[in-house]
Amino acid sequence: MLAPTKLALSGARFRVTYQIAGARDEVMRKAEEICIEQTVEFPADLVPDDDIRAHVFGRIESVEQRAEQLFHVQISYAIETAGLEITQLLNVVFGNTSMKPDIQVADLALPDSLLAAYAGPRFGVAGLRELLGVTGRPLLCTAIKPMGLSAAALAQMTGDFARGGIDLIKDDHGLADQVFAPYAERVKRCAEAVQEANQRTGRRSVYAPNVTAPGRALWERAYLAKQAGAGAFLVAPGIVGYDRMQALADDPQLGLPILFHPALLGSFVTYPYTGMAHGVVFGLLGRLAGADVTIFPNFGGRFSFSREDCLAIAEAARRPLGHLKPIFPAPAGGMSIGRVADMVALYGVDTVLLIGGDLHRHPDGVYAASQRFLETVLAACAQR
Amino acid sequence: MLAPTKLALSGARFRVTYQIAGARDEVMRKAEEICIEQTVEFPADLVPDDDIRAHVFGRIESVEQRAEQLFHVQISYAIETAGLEITQLLNVVFGNTSMKPDIQVADLALPDSLLAAYAGPRFGVAGLRELLGVTGRPLLCTAIKPMGLSAAALAQMTGDFARGGIDLIKDDHGLADQVFAPYAERVKRCAEAVQEANQRTGRRSVYAPNVTAPGRALWERAYLAKQAGAGAFLVAPGIVGYDRMQALADDPQLGLPILFHPALLGSFVTYPYTGMAHGVVFGLLGRLAGADVTIFPNFGGRFSFSREDCLAIAEAARRPLGHLKPIFPAPAGGMSIGRVADMVALYGVDTVLLIGGDLHRHPDGVYAASQRFLETVLAACAQR
Repeated sequence: MLAPTKLALSGARFRVTYQIAGARDEVMRKAEEICIEQTVEFPADLVPDDDIRAHVFGRIESVEQRAEQLFHVQISYAIETAGLEITQLLNVVFGNTSMKPDIQVADLALPDSLLAAYAGPRFGVAGLRELLGVTGRPLLCTAIKPMGLSAAALAQMTGDFARGGIDLIKDDHGLADQVFAPYAERVKRCAEAVQEANQRTGRRSVYAPNVTAPGRALWERAYLAKQAGAGAFLVAPGIVGYDRMQALADDPQLGLPILFHPALLGSFVTYPYTGMAHGVVFGLLGRLAGADVTIFPNFGGRFSFSREDCLAIAEAARRPLGHLKPIFPAPAGGMSIGRVADMVALYGVDTVLLIGGDLHRHPDGVYAASQRFLETVLAACAQR
Repeated sequence: MLAPTKLALSGARFRVTYQIAGARDEVMRKAEEICIEQTVEFPADLVPDDDIRAHVFGRIESVEQRAEQLFHVQISYAIETAGLEITQLLNVVFGNTSMKPDIQVADLALPDSLLAAYAGPRFGVAGLRELLGVTGRPLLCTAIKPMGLSAAALAQMTGDFARGGIDLIKDDHGLADQVFAPYAERVKRCAEAVQEANQRTGRRSVYAPNVTAPGRALWERAYLAKQAGAGAFLVAPGIVGYDRMQALADDPQLGLPILFHPALLGSFVTYPYTGMAHGVVFGLLGRLAGADVTIFPNFGGRFSFSREDCLAIAEAARRPLGHLKPIFPAPAGGMSIGRVADMVALYGVDTVLLIGGDLHRHPDGVYAASQRFLETVLAACAQR
């Protein structure tokens, strides 16, 4: 038995809703295990009746049956357990329990005292609209690709997209620093191409290079991009960590919008009874880590997300969350101009519409395709 | 249609084995989609008969039926697609395909030309044995906890473990920089406690603080630990990215062994038909990213990994992998002294045995428990 410990804590707690599959008594047993596993990870019977037991242990706040053999259990944790750091917050929310079956993180409720430690999105919906000078319609986004093209060819394409009216022209997430189109050359050329296009059109389109890169290279690429005149960053926190997306967003010398790419995060959401819910992974955690746009595969494309999953992401991107700004959901993944009207109707105007490969199918090239994309969006907005 | 592209590539390719569930024709369709999705992510019919089609597209190398409705499809990619960076390697292996159901990364085969870009584990099995001065038996490991104790109490515990004969005394992964036991104070006290114990015992035990931390704080904590005399690092790449584990391992000014903690990675392995296989997540990728010890929940404890899963991790930790050193598997997660003999018999001597909470159950305290742990390991080795 440990000696009793006295602690001076704030009393503020954050809440995690776990969806747990099983019969009620089994679910309650699992919930009690979570309270221990995610905090002290220590035999509970060896902890005396002290402040660790009273305040550091997770606490079951509510239990709600959602379906046969399916419960939502809300567990609260002292905000001090997460130490106001996103890395440790992830650890308390799901670190070890991720390795247990039939438990999913369904939602998070974070008090202002915890949110105060997070700057959140630097731009959000209003800030990004202001930066781009676009109101009253969804933002248009596309990706330059395929991998294998030269930097010059990609820059040509970038310019065509910008002249055609695309607001956000991002690297395909598969473009890194390969020999085909080395990062430094690509970023310089593509940023220039957008600047030239903006001078012609009077628009304020931006190029968003992919800064998902190992160790210090992430920072070298971000600073190089800023210097070259890139207007935003694409980053995959599933590969480099949510905390580095947060650090990119928080860096005052960079000060650019962040596009959150979902690569590698599918393992968190592909099965319903494990991982973390779509709204948590792509919405809440994305905002907490400073994303201004959260890209996800829309239903009806090449991927497995359902309509309900996608709407949960959009809801989490925009719901009230203390002082954190709402952000743009960006449904993507095999979308086409033919789906614009439906997407605008479903997601509303505060949405980024991301169409990639389909813009290349237009017989007159990507410039004409971009114009058509913009016209289609404007028409869809006029019909609302 | 794109203009044809000419490329000068090495011809070297790495191979990913995907386990795909479904009927044969459906599996073949999914495999062909993977070849595109993981590389060009572009309409294949718009790519001419050029070097992008011939070399950048993924290529199906073999198809093997493993069970009813279950196939292993090996797909190769030009090493240039991954650009010799672990972030982009992860992206090519599974980035977008992680968001499709019924596809798992079962194994990786990485050619020497790719492995040459990775230093891998700095110590590995032989190096860590030399550092600790331990031969002929498994290494002993434990964790200081619970969260909520003061730095002084944790340091007292650390010293007791070291005096009792534990080789690797790590922070519990839940210890970060909370008010209970602030990082700087904890690391200084715990490192001192181990050094004092070593002076008494003549052993070379090490303390491994948890450097899983946001952004630059990871590096500040690692350097602070090095300066304070810590002997290894605990890091959770599921939270901060494999690339930062690699950067820690590669940093010549740090030069300390790396213990890989599995927090948050359960979502990759908890279901059999999604994510990545245990051997890939905890074995191959861990080694590629420089881990010297890979910690995972052993079967028969509190977690869901099967015996087969655990053996796959141990196999991947030690199999030939170019110039990369073999590393220690560390079965953990609710283990007890009573299971030592079985673990030694199953995993062999080149194993780290990690027992946490159970050492606190000994009526005479953790010093006596550590002695008993060591005696039990020696007895189990003598019986082999």
